[in-house]
Amino acid sequence: MMRQAGKKTVRVGMVGYRFMGKVHSNAYRGVPFFFDTEVVPILQGIAGRDEDAVKREAQILGFATYETDWRRLIERDDIDVIDIVTPNHMHADIAIAAAEAGKHVISEKPLAMTTEQGRQMLDAVQKAGVVHMVCHNYRFAPAVQFAKKLIEEGRIGQIRHIRAQYIQDWLMDPNTPLTWRLQKDVTGTGTLGDIGSHIIDLARFLVGEFSEVVGMWDMIVKQRPLGENSTEMGEVTVDDACSFLARFHNGAMGVFEATRFAGGNRAGNRFEINGEKGSIRWDLENMNSLQVYFQDDEPALQGFRTIHCTGEHHPYTSAYWPTGHSIGYEHTFINLMVNFMQGISTGVSPSPSFEDGLRNQYVLEAVEQSILSRQWVAVQSI
Amino acid sequence: MMRQAGKKTVRVGMVGYRFMGKVHSNAYRGVPFFFDTEVVPILQGIAGRDEDAVKREAQILGFATYETDWRRLIERDDIDVIDIVTPNHMHADIAIAAAEAGKHVISEKPLAMTTEQGRQMLDAVQKAGVVHMVCHNYRFAPAVQFAKKLIEEGRIGQIRHIRAQYIQDWLMDPNTPLTWRLQKDVTGTGTLGDIGSHIIDLARFLVGEFSEVVGMWDMIVKQRPLGENSTEMGEVTVDDACSFLARFHNGAMGVFEATRFAGGNRAGNRFEINGEKGSIRWDLENMNSLQVYFQDDEPALQGFRTIHCTGEHHPYTSAYWPTGHSIGYEHTFINLMVNFMQGISTGVSPSPSFEDGLRNQYVLEAVEQSILSRQWVAVQSI
Amino acid sequence: MMRQAGKKTVRVGMVGYRFMGKVHSNAYRGVPFFFDTEVVPILQGIAGRDEDAVKREAQILGFATYETDWRRLIERDDIDVIDIVTPNHMHADIAIAAAEAGKHVISEKPLAMTTEQGRQMLDAVQKAGVVHMVCHNYRFAPAVQFAKKLIEEGRIGQIRHIRAQYIQDWLMDPNTPLTWRLQKDVTGTGTLGDIGSHIIDLARFLVGEFSEVVGMWDMIVKQRPLGENSTEMGEVTVDDACSFLARFHNGAMGVFEATRFAGGNRAGNRFEINGEKGSIRWDLENMNSLQVYFQDDEPALQGFRTIHCTGEHHPYTSAYWPTGHSIGYEHTFINLMVNFMQGISTGVSPSPSFEDGLRNQYVLEAVEQSILSRQWVAVQSI
Amino acid sequence: MMRQAGKKTVRVGMVGYRFMGKVHSNAYRGVPFFFDTEVVPILQGIAGRDEDAVKREAQILGFATYETDWRRLIERDDIDVIDIVTPNHMHADIAIAAAEAGKHVISEKPLAMTTEQGRQMLDAVQKAGVVHMVCHNYRFAPAVQFAKKLIEEGRIGQIRHIRAQYIQDWLMDPNTPLTWRLQKDVTGTGTLGDIGSHIIDLARFLVGEFSEVVGMWDMIVKQRPLGENSTEMGEVTVDDACSFLARFHNGAMGVFEATRFAGGNRAGNRFEINGEKGSIRWDLENMNSLQVYFQDDEPALQGFRTIHCTGEHHPYTSAYWPTGHSIGYEHTFINLMVNFMQGISTGVSPSPSFEDGLRNQYVLEAVEQSILSRQWVAVQSI
Repeated sequence: MMRQAGKKTVRVGMVGYRFMGKVHSNAYRGVPFFFDTEVVPILQGIAGRDEDAVKREAQILGFATYETDWRRLIERDDIDVIDIVTPNHMHADIAIAAAEAGKHVISEKPLAMTTEQGRQMLDAVQKAGVVHMVCHNYRFAPAVQFAKKLIEEGRIGQIRHIRAQYIQDWLMDPNTPLTWRLQKDVTGTGTLGDIGSHIIDLARFLVGEFSEVVGMWDMIVKQRPLGENSTEMGEVTVDDACSFLARFHNGAMGVFEATRFAGGNRAGNRFEINGEKGSIRWDLENMNSLQVYFQDDEPALQGFRTIHCTGEHHPYTSAYWPTGHSIGYEHTFINLMVNFMQGISTGVSPSPSFEDGLRNQYVLEAVEQSILSRQWVAVQSI
Repeated sequence: MMRQAGKKTVRVGMVGYRFMGKVHSNAYRGVPFFFDTEVVPILQGIAGRDEDAVKREAQILGFATYETDWRRLIERDDIDVIDIVTPNHMHADIAIAAAEAGKHVISEKPLAMTTEQGRQMLDAVQKAGVVHMVCHNYRFAPAVQFAKKLIEEGRIGQIRHIRAQYIQDWLMDPNTPLTWRLQKDVTGTGTLGDIGSHIIDLARFLVGEFSEVVGMWDMIVKQRPLGENSTEMGEVTVDDACSFLARFHNGAMGVFEATRFAGGNRAGNRFEINGEKGSIRWDLENMNSLQVYFQDDEPALQGFRTIHCTGEHHPYTSAYWPTGHSIGYEHTFINLMVNFMQGISTGVSPSPSFEDGLRNQYVLEAVEQSILSRQWVAVQSI
Repeated sequence: MMRQAGKKTVRVGMVGYRFMGKVHSNAYRGVPFFFDTEVVPILQGIAGRDEDAVKREAQILGFATYETDWRRLIERDDIDVIDIVTPNHMHADIAIAAAEAGKHVISEKPLAMTTEQGRQMLDAVQKAGVVHMVCHNYRFAPAVQFAKKLIEEGRIGQIRHIRAQYIQDWLMDPNTPLTWRLQKDVTGTGTLGDIGSHIIDLARFLVGEFSEVVGMWDMIVKQRPLGENSTEMGEVTVDDACSFLARFHNGAMGVFEATRFAGGNRAGNRFEINGEKGSIRWDLENMNSLQVYFQDDEPALQGFRTIHCTGEHHPYTSAYWPTGHSIGYEHTFINLMVNFMQGISTGVSPSPSFEDGLRNQYVLEAVEQSILSRQWVAVQSI
Repeated sequence: MMRQAGKKTVRVGMVGYRFMGKVHSNAYRGVPFFFDTEVVPILQGIAGRDEDAVKREAQILGFATYETDWRRLIERDDIDVIDIVTPNHMHADIAIAAAEAGKHVISEKPLAMTTEQGRQMLDAVQKAGVVHMVCHNYRFAPAVQFAKKLIEEGRIGQIRHIRAQYIQDWLMDPNTPLTWRLQKDVTGTGTLGDIGSHIIDLARFLVGEFSEVVGMWDMIVKQRPLGENSTEMGEVTVDDACSFLARFHNGAMGVFEATRFAGGNRAGNRFEINGEKGSIRWDLENMNSLQVYFQDDEPALQGFRTIHCTGEHHPYTSAYWPTGHSIGYEHTFINLMVNFMQGISTGVSPSPSFEDGLRNQYVLEAVEQSILSRQWVAVQSI
């Protein structure tokens, strides 16, 4: 069905099935509905430890089969791609095993728990010659893609500043239970790696490579209930909030902030970039709009333009609905998966690849070291 | 697949396959992915006159079969629902034939070309005892559903005012070709019926029934090219812009405006409602947000709250993504189709039904008559 | 003092001293501080019936003398200008007496209670050859002046639409006492004349002359306490809310609304104008900003620009503070008074003159007649 | 005149007469017009080196006399207050001389060039027992005062975050001439001291005392023309852009940024504060509005409220115009001067006093040292 007639297909095996499993499944389904890619994904198998749950989710999400051991999924001949939507501490093992089995690999972010892990993962996929990608999806919002285009065309000139935030508020209630995202051994870092890594990716995509950083963080609520109505408490072992200054190789200055204690900011993923000739602003909470300022507009008419990036001239949007009709969060993943399919078609890993994931990890590591050493730390090159 | 195991299914036959065909197909596909409805839709057949086109679209949209004559689709035993996404002048014939064949019917808006047609359509579905619905989708934006809930709970008290606009700009260029939406014999009225009917539906949903109206309209560009590069011109035979005042049965005052010549407004579907105790504002271009004002807030703290209606406490949104993650235009249709499936399950036509479509048509007719007679006209009751 | 050395001065006599008296006094004081006009105002005398009050206000507002009878102020040789800030029903008598005494006259809006009165006032000032002005101050917001400039330069082309509102909420509480603004014999009409006249003036200034109108109004709260803690009730005898459609002589369509029951809108004086080539939006609650859209911007970069009209290239603002530093409500009056001083200097009554006031009154009258007759009514020409 | 009858007056001598001289003069004039203070200012004398200019400005601004040597102004018996609106390098000499002569002193910000100077200035005014104040005017915006009130009442609970920016764009053009604000020997630091000091003051006012900081800065354009049409170039010797992280004594985390290269931001003085129970946002470019979020609002109704802080329940605003009528930049100074007059009346120096100025200077110094040492630096206590 659906544009598959006479087309090459890739059979996807997904490890994990919660929030991100749903997002990825929806994205695979959307690719052939909205786009005419050369390679088309098939939801072939899904793995999870709880058989009842994974069986039910296979049915809802549309997978043909399921496994209760991810290693079994990787062994199967009818799987071409391994998609990793597990907690962070499992990314490396799965990705390396998948690469060694010759599967293309796509992983949720952050790529790894440490730069060492990330390095091993990149080595594995490169050695295996498989296509690899890491899911920094916000790059693929049409408004962000359009920002990239403007920057590449030199429309705002050399970049001087980026200020970027990913600020949320879902941990404000001290009774919100401990989740895996708050435990160091499962997640690596807290806000830094989870949402900080997203704005690092946006900055790398739009501004360039980081040179050095200095940061701070805080653990605001130190203990949380182990479950919804539990009276037993567990330790929070990662940062609740993190901010850092950065210098980029091209000289730009950056100010970054990630927190889950910014009341009223549900998904406050925002940036403003100032260049020699103009500025660009974006906010995920109103994600179809981009604000753009040009210094060479007629003086009396200078001001930020609010552009609804849903027109035929904007990236990706002509695949969806007519101008002015909003798309949402999930479409960033459909667009990402279109790139992944194109990568499989051409054999060239699309950006953000595992290399991007590793570079991101180097920034995360430098921020963490700067916090511990209380001074500026250079970001390692690849 | 997908939640269908052991579930009742309805087999959908769709007539038409362009913009709205894509929207409806996507919505049917989304229902079992996001919701756990008792009845699940199957994309069984699609009809269109151009065989190559309909065959290709059947494949892209995911329909199992196609027909080149809509009458043939209606005759088929393996079709339970007829979904009408054709130009307006065909709605009545198809709907009546479908009802007579015992199919449930769902139609794009406006329901009909005239109130007479609408009356016949309503009679036909009622006589046949089939489930019927008309696609005023904007009701189903979670923010609008939440507005409805607040109003029903009396949170803003008795309503005094609604000011609503659906203003667009896609006809500003006089070289934009003539489409069926600009020809009276195919579309009925222009902006009035096409986008004016949407804000009439929102007003009926949120405020109540119209009592009387007085309006004006204009044909701003009177001739347009017959095609993209055509030098041959055709006559625009409907209104390019329309506005009207209204009184509601509950005493509320309304101000309405629809136009396709409001530069910079891509999909400016907006309303503000003022009640005895508060106010509500919504704008499709930023459709996940609702602005709400309460007069009984502490005086110094009174102000419109901007609520990102993507939380677990908001209608429909817990089926999608976590709080703060936007959904788009297409999700209004998924939500609508959930209601249609529930209607089929219970045998009770959900709102907006053909009855709502006809009531809407009575308002359209009264506006048109008021323009021709240059005075206030009462809106007919059903 | 203050730029008066060697300059011509005009000695102002003000009738009334409440809210608008304070606004006008502040404006006269601001003229020589911020601007280098040829004629400079002197606060010479103020009249009010309550001697204690007028004496105190003379001191606070900075008037050299006071009178308890406005007729006495007009008789004085040391008064060159009569400034009328009384309730509406006194405008005509004072203005006509002042003109007959050879004084220049400036009056608060609306000019008169009726078109007959307005006609007599215009005749009186024209016969006397004095300079006259009516205080539609919102024209003089720098952002509005800039909008006018853009329109005059043809930057948005022929105008197709204006939608304008002046919506407030200070009457929502039914216990708010009856004021003179709610009594027909003192105020003429309610929201229509008080705030509706402001948006009519803005429309006349920016779009052109009205051709015909049709309207509706309502009296939402019919009785109010006679004072702050009074249990005695008085009748509200004017409209609480009013809306109307309009056609302009140049073909533009207008939609207008004035109400004092729009919760959350403190001073919701807003308009959007759509032309052949662009659009303009303004909102008094954020009065330094203007939103401007150009259809001939590069397609992908089209969007409303938010222009902070406080730059050296914007009207009036270089007299105040550096770019980006906001001015407020009172500066619209300082700018207005600069025009009045220039009018006195040149002998040419600046716009809005009493003629503008009368044209405004003709629109008000036509709206009222259309409401009573329930049909479109042509607006009288001067 | 003006509320002076029977009132104590203070005779003001101002040193300097450019931008800030105009702002202060206007503020003194506004005090008795809008407020009923016990002490009323008299514009007695103004000093400047260029006799023609100072004479002209004395007339425009409304000063009774002028001097060409500021020392002469301080010697005069008819001067009670010295107001310093000169470039920064003169603040200390003038303030100390004024204090020694027994005059009350008010100075523009930043208080001094160095912490040593600031210390001497504070010592001088304390020893002399005169009233002293430094002009961090943004505290006195009604919306900011209201934010302070909410914080003091515990409405947003313990503060966790502040992110504050003062970002401008007036130096983007490399041909903009060198001014005193770009020369280290006259100004001290660049953006850090000039606009950074404003957001430091807002943070101290709203959040509390700084504990430690780490920063970065940049000189983006290193040479500029010496005058409007000059071909001769001069060296820029201060920072064009500066950002820093901060920890407060109460544990709050801060992110600060000041730049003059943020295109499209004319006066982007903004902050967001997140507390345990809510959040507050403010933006100078729309200075009458405050955005407030409460975590304990009903879940589905949580969202930032946009409050137009011009009502009778908001600080200072009942002295001006009715609810909804905006005030501007200059009113922050009128409110500040009301505090200064009250300070003179009671003998207690109002906040921000020279002590606040010195504490601010300690933060500036710590930021500068952190930049030079590339590590966190503790902020000195007073």
